[in-house]
Amino acid sequence: MNTKIKELALNQIKVTDSFFAPMQQLVIDEVIPYQEKILKDEIPGVEKSHAIENFRIAAGLSEGEFYGMVFQDSDVAKWLEGVAYSLMIKPDAQLEARADAIIDVIEGAQQPDGYLNTYFTVKEPEQRWQNLQECHELYCAGHMMEAAAAYYEATGKDKLLHVMERMADHIIGRFGEDKERGIPGHQEVEIGLMRLYRVTGKEKYRDMADFFIEERGKNPLYYLEEAKKRGWQHFGMDPENPAYNQAHVTVYEQKEAVGHSVRAVYMYTAMADLAASLQNERLKKACEDLWDNLTGRRMYVTGGIGSTVDGEAFTIDYDLPNDTAYAETCASIGVVFFAKKMLSMEADGRYADVMERELYNGIISGMQLDGKRFFYVNPLEVNPGISGVLYGHKHVLPERPEWYACACCPPNVVRLLTSLGKYTWDETEDTIYSHLFIGQRAELEKAVITVESSYPWEGKVSYQVEAKEEKEFTFAIHIPSYIKDAVVTVNGEKVCISERLKKGYLYLKRVWGKDDRVEIAFDMPVRKIYASQKVKEDAGCVALMRGPVVYCFEGMDNGEMLQSLRIPKQLSAKAVKCEEGVLKGNVLLRLKGIRMVGSEELYSEEPPRAEETEITAVPYYTWGNRGLNQMRVWMLEE
Amino acid sequence: MNTKIKELALNQIKVTDSFFAPMQQLVIDEVIPYQEKILKDEIPGVEKSHAIENFRIAAGLSEGEFYGMVFQDSDVAKWLEGVAYSLMIKPDAQLEARADAIIDVIEGAQQPDGYLNTYFTVKEPEQRWQNLQECHELYCAGHMMEAAAAYYEATGKDKLLHVMERMADHIIGRFGEDKERGIPGHQEVEIGLMRLYRVTGKEKYRDMADFFIEERGKNPLYYLEEAKKRGWQHFGMDPENPAYNQAHVTVYEQKEAVGHSVRAVYMYTAMADLAASLQNERLKKACEDLWDNLTGRRMYVTGGIGSTVDGEAFTIDYDLPNDTAYAETCASIGVVFFAKKMLSMEADGRYADVMERELYNGIISGMQLDGKRFFYVNPLEVNPGISGVLYGHKHVLPERPEWYACACCPPNVVRLLTSLGKYTWDETEDTIYSHLFIGQRAELEKAVITVESSYPWEGKVSYQVEAKEEKEFTFAIHIPSYIKDAVVTVNGEKVCISERLKKGYLYLKRVWGKDDRVEIAFDMPVRKIYASQKVKEDAGCVALMRGPVVYCFEGMDNGEMLQSLRIPKQLSAKAVKCEEGVLKGNVLLRLKGIRMVGSEELYSEEPPRAEETEITAVPYYTWGNRGLNQMRVWMLEE
Repeated sequence: MNTKIKELALNQIKVTDSFFAPMQQLVIDEVIPYQEKILKDEIPGVEKSHAIENFRIAAGLSEGEFYGMVFQDSDVAKWLEGVAYSLMIKPDAQLEARADAIIDVIEGAQQPDGYLNTYFTVKEPEQRWQNLQECHELYCAGHMMEAAAAYYEATGKDKLLHVMERMADHIIGRFGEDKERGIPGHQEVEIGLMRLYRVTGKEKYRDMADFFIEERGKNPLYYLEEAKKRGWQHFGMDPENPAYNQAHVTVYEQKEAVGHSVRAVYMYTAMADLAASLQNERLKKACEDLWDNLTGRRMYVTGGIGSTVDGEAFTIDYDLPNDTAYAETCASIGVVFFAKKMLSMEADGRYADVMERELYNGIISGMQLDGKRFFYVNPLEVNPGISGVLYGHKHVLPERPEWYACACCPPNVVRLLTSLGKYTWDETEDTIYSHLFIGQRAELEKAVITVESSYPWEGKVSYQVEAKEEKEFTFAIHIPSYIKDAVVTVNGEKVCISERLKKGYLYLKRVWGKDDRVEIAFDMPVRKIYASQKVKEDAGCVALMRGPVVYCFEGMDNGEMLQSLRIPKQLSAKAVKCEEGVLKGNVLLRLKGIRMVGSEELYSEEPPRAEETEITAVPYYTWGNRGLNQMRVWMLEE
Repeated sequence: MNTKIKELALNQIKVTDSFFAPMQQLVIDEVIPYQEKILKDEIPGVEKSHAIENFRIAAGLSEGEFYGMVFQDSDVAKWLEGVAYSLMIKPDAQLEARADAIIDVIEGAQQPDGYLNTYFTVKEPEQRWQNLQECHELYCAGHMMEAAAAYYEATGKDKLLHVMERMADHIIGRFGEDKERGIPGHQEVEIGLMRLYRVTGKEKYRDMADFFIEERGKNPLYYLEEAKKRGWQHFGMDPENPAYNQAHVTVYEQKEAVGHSVRAVYMYTAMADLAASLQNERLKKACEDLWDNLTGRRMYVTGGIGSTVDGEAFTIDYDLPNDTAYAETCASIGVVFFAKKMLSMEADGRYADVMERELYNGIISGMQLDGKRFFYVNPLEVNPGISGVLYGHKHVLPERPEWYACACCPPNVVRLLTSLGKYTWDETEDTIYSHLFIGQRAELEKAVITVESSYPWEGKVSYQVEAKEEKEFTFAIHIPSYIKDAVVTVNGEKVCISERLKKGYLYLKRVWGKDDRVEIAFDMPVRKIYASQKVKEDAGCVALMRGPVVYCFEGMDNGEMLQSLRIPKQLSAKAVKCEEGVLKGNVLLRLKGIRMVGSEELYSEEPPRAEETEITAVPYYTWGNRGLNQMRVWMLEE
């Protein structure tokens, strides 16, 4: 276990990546300003947010009723966190001033005892802390703690940080071993408390996070007893189904990813962070077990998790239906959080591989290429007339709705993309780890490293290393597991990879100087991916990948009835850069395919005949950008 | 159009078929007595019926409250209809006496003005006829009319017939062109009225049925206007969705099978009956259009109809999901009703082919082999842990529940199987039509015909024709369309089939004597069936049939992971009579199959390798008789 890992501050990093930097710009230019208007109810005709007005009412600055969900406050928190990251990428004094003004209002909404939650403050002050299962007070607090830490890192301003320290102290005063043994209904406060701990160095916050994780599942009847005691319900969530909230057994006994998928991965993230911070080997083992189940049996090839809309939840091992997947964008983002915490404990390529799977596929599929529309649900197959229409498929929208219709995924995409640099690096006393091939300039402790990357479209990455002082240390670079033929040079000299590769990381130990250069080159053939035979929905099928990118087929490129197409046994595929239209800049695949043509009868004894045809695949994340049409990732093989 | 068709009385026919006669016995011995006890609330521990008690209360013979669904009366009606048929097969003086006693109670429950419905009589007398959309008064009346006609045919007793004539007259007094222009919410009364018409010869009943069919959809706002007028709802059915009740446009304008599937096929049945009876060519054309859509785009290979549990309804063309099918047993039974009416208009083998598809597959799959458990829903794929458990799959039970849990399908199976003879024949002035290869002795007008059949397991059928008087007439025998090589002899002399086959019927015109014999022999190879490429769920798959029987694969015969099996391009299958166990007497298929064995990884680049294996298929209708396991009809082809 790496114990001396240091968290990188985001302002040490500047992403210049040709793939991700424009996406960062998009969310900074499009999403953050739009959401600000939403939060301030300045856009007519869209669903009312009222989130900032709720804070104003709680602060006594305005009169009126609370409006919105019990977790409405978290919209403001997630927006502020995204603003903090965006200010590090692109300073904006006006935006910062507006954020400061909102923070003033938040401070005003805080109660004398430190409590902060506009729903209960305005609407039901007497019901505070009575319904941890449903009422999201700790969840909202967690998000605001994350925002506070991020805003402090970005601006050096500590007003919100102090607000959230007071709220954290209020929580510490109420919950704990010898106090109320409560557990959150939606995990998140654990992550927030760990961030407070990292920013302030105060162990009480880590201890509080540790209590919430350790206490979880010790009393599986907690929510039921809580519900009986208070005698009222908010949403009508079943207090007898603690597995939904991952509170059915202790975290050490959880071997399968169950329940609501976002709650799950937020909890795993905090578990991994605590395991590393407290050197809790048993907790680390629990994380590994959950990781194995999550990624080895319950994850789509795109990185999507959560197979059912019913509770936005996991189902059972190998149940991965493509056309009714839930695969929430937020859940995939949570997997990146979790993966990064695992990586910080142990540089094992399987974590970085999954992080890559998420970043190039199941997360960014959540956002329209123009940054204006968003998916919650990221299916691997849609069929017009069925998807979004019929029972069991209503949640599977075949086109992204305008983003303001969903309050949770867009700001999560914002905060992930604007903080992307955080996921790229770890640094210990003797080693720098590079987890991702993302173009950037990173000021690390031991060196400034400039990464140039043609990823994900070409297999060409270079690291310019400028050591702060000329000395020996290890530079460990993750080589994605699909790469079989990488050629690596240091200052032009070829490195023997097999000697230096360990668990997916290439260890380059040497004396690094002021101008050393590591170059990595590899082929990017189109790869056929097969799912386990246990995944019945993918039986007989292949998916295509090139580099980290999963491809899909859309009706408009391939005529109707994608199900009648077959991928030949002998793949003959060309990667072609798209030069025009909304997909411009993306690499598409043109391949020889087969179309099965059968009888016009519904059922017949006439075997369908095979006709050769040219077919086109597009990166999965770009699907649904050109209008309503059929889409499939998994295609039948010849 | 055959206009001089005569309806056969059921007592002219005695089914001796080695396949169906034991099923008739089973329903007579098991289902009818069991249901009687249910109706009389004599079985402790099962869901209360109260259906006969409701009639007793309405008749003033008992005190108490109405209990049950608004259509609870129909359970008694369907049971009585089944009893009537069973008495023709197997006279039972005690059963008949008990049925008579129940009929006395029903008579007592009839109101002075002829109205008969215990829900409204006992519970809401002032609300009669206010809610045709939801409240099933006409539906219950229709079923009781069917029972009355059947009971009269079986026993010659006309008490119930007169009760239902009075109810029909009451309906005639209320609804019609210049009266209230009502339409039933659940079609059925049209069928009942046509049966009253046939038994009594009174055209007013046919006219009433005709009104209900003609009026339907003329005012698509009928239910909405009705709902606004009365200001209350019963179930909360949407009055703005008349397509659910096939009342969105007139029956002439309906080109697609939409809405609730049982309502639909009951309506089509009445339409076809009226078209024949009134020589309404336009109505016949409407039936043909609906038939084409129903059977050509919206029917499972097993004969199942209704692709979604959401409203037990049709969805869109070619949407035939196997693991979430609804395919209600009752709906398949309704298809037989419809098919028979179409056949009576025109001896076209496509109707008889579908009737056969239903009878040997999707209907009898509804009943456990021991007659004690029943399926509503007849899926083409089940997966333990998913089917019956997960969202979207909860309706797909992987094992038949005890039959009393469902009130509608079991009595429908009873009345269909006990009246099977009706579906076998038509007779016109100059022709006898045989539609099905079912062993029986039939006393027709022109001849007594004894059918011996090895169907469905062997291709050997003989007809012993004993003409009442030696004279020329045509004997037309349906040859199922899958049979390519039939050898037909008349008194040992081979007949040239191609000359005599027209639309699936073999026309044998000759002078028939007292002891003529037609023999039909044909091979029964195992056939691979392909679905249209438009059916995405069956892409790359085949189903196996032998004779009229659709086969399926169960986990217990083939190990786990049926999805990893492949049917070879070159089929090598043996038909083997099962000699023991619950499947005894059924022909199973043993075939060379392929099992794909792949990586243990969830996703990998390793193509699965093919291993030869022996696999076993069982008749679809027998699935789920040996415990919980996986099942599939459509299997991937090599």
